[in-house]
Amino acid sequence: MGTQEVQYKPLSVKELLKEMKNLSSLMIDLAYSAFLYDHKKLAEEVMRLEERVDYLGYLLGIQAALAARDREDAEQVSGILKVASAVDKMSDAAADIANLVLLDISVHPTIHSAFKKTEEIIGRIKIREKSVLINKTFEDLELETRIGVDVIALRRGKDWILNPNKKIKLQVGDILIARGSVESIEFLDKLSSGKVNKLPEVAK
Amino acid sequence: MGTQEVQYKPLSVKELLKEMKNLSSLMIDLAYSAFLYDHKKLAEEVMRLEERVDYLGYLLGIQAALAARDREDAEQVSGILKVASAVDKMSDAAADIANLVLLDISVHPTIHSAFKKTEEIIGRIKIREKSVLINKTFEDLELETRIGVDVIALRRGKDWILNPNKKIKLQVGDILIARGSVESIEFLDKLSSGKVNKLPEVAK
Repeated sequence: MGTQEVQYKPLSVKELLKEMKNLSSLMIDLAYSAFLYDHKKLAEEVMRLEERVDYLGYLLGIQAALAARDREDAEQVSGILKVASAVDKMSDAAADIANLVLLDISVHPTIHSAFKKTEEIIGRIKIREKSVLINKTFEDLELETRIGVDVIALRRGKDWILNPNKKIKLQVGDILIARGSVESIEFLDKLSSGKVNKLPEVAK
Repeated sequence: MGTQEVQYKPLSVKELLKEMKNLSSLMIDLAYSAFLYDHKKLAEEVMRLEERVDYLGYLLGIQAALAARDREDAEQVSGILKVASAVDKMSDAAADIANLVLLDISVHPTIHSAFKKTEEIIGRIKIREKSVLINKTFEDLELETRIGVDVIALRRGKDWILNPNKKIKLQVGDILIARGSVESIEFLDKLSSGKVNKLPEVAK
């Protein structure tokens, strides 16, 4: 297994639109979480996602222009370009929110703590050298069953994988974006940093 | 049961931010779906959601202003207002996409049909007078198990309920926003319009 599984090869307008939709939805989720929990690393991921969405928008523009052969095509191309511009606006807005976090403009600590008590949070966790998670697939790990976290995205370098496939093997440096309770995210963090080396048993 | 369960009483900045986040995420999902499947009714729901998000942004502004008592408070209020403005930008962008659909600017039919073959779609379904679904709760209906649709939102008049509670009883005029295959959404539509009066048995 190499990095092939995470490589993105944009081929069609359809694929590009779908990817932009998914990434911009993720950006919004992460931007809000970063703001509500004053989570700078998560805000930085939003900024990275913005670059990705911008790049996809650029590819979409090229694809759309290539597709136009007559007047009717051109009208549809214009529609697609307008969608690309709307997506750009959304991802800018998500980046605006993330930027507040990076500029240390945040909500009142009582709001943070109110959220932490009651809500699922989104964590950003980096796989470090000593982690027991390395070379394991999500299928091996059963993170949702064992510790109650849902990995919603994985970043490997500049590549983003949304809802990662069960067969993907974790590598050093992978960034996991996961949803769960504060405790379960903290536990995943310990597994990822190597502070804890044993996964809980799967309940039967 | 009245309409009480769906009434929205904004109380805190926290509640407002959460609701705005959820509604804007929903708007983006619906706007893309409306565009990809050229679905005007869904585009109209996006427009309705935009009104709701605008209204929540207005309430958030009031709440935030009321909360400011000193200079430190005022800084945080300014952060919250910036988030509100970013949310406004997002919901505007989603509305831009929906507007393309309402203006009949759409993608090529081959893209629509490519999506329909491979993807889950989002349907917008209205409960009509003769529907077998009336006065049933989601718990009674088990729509996900029986027909494979996931109701992600319900609109009752101007009220929106995201991920509706299992105990909610369906009423005439309710609008369901549901995710599923083309076949399952079409089947839900038949149940909602009264064309089909029998739900499939639950597999054991």
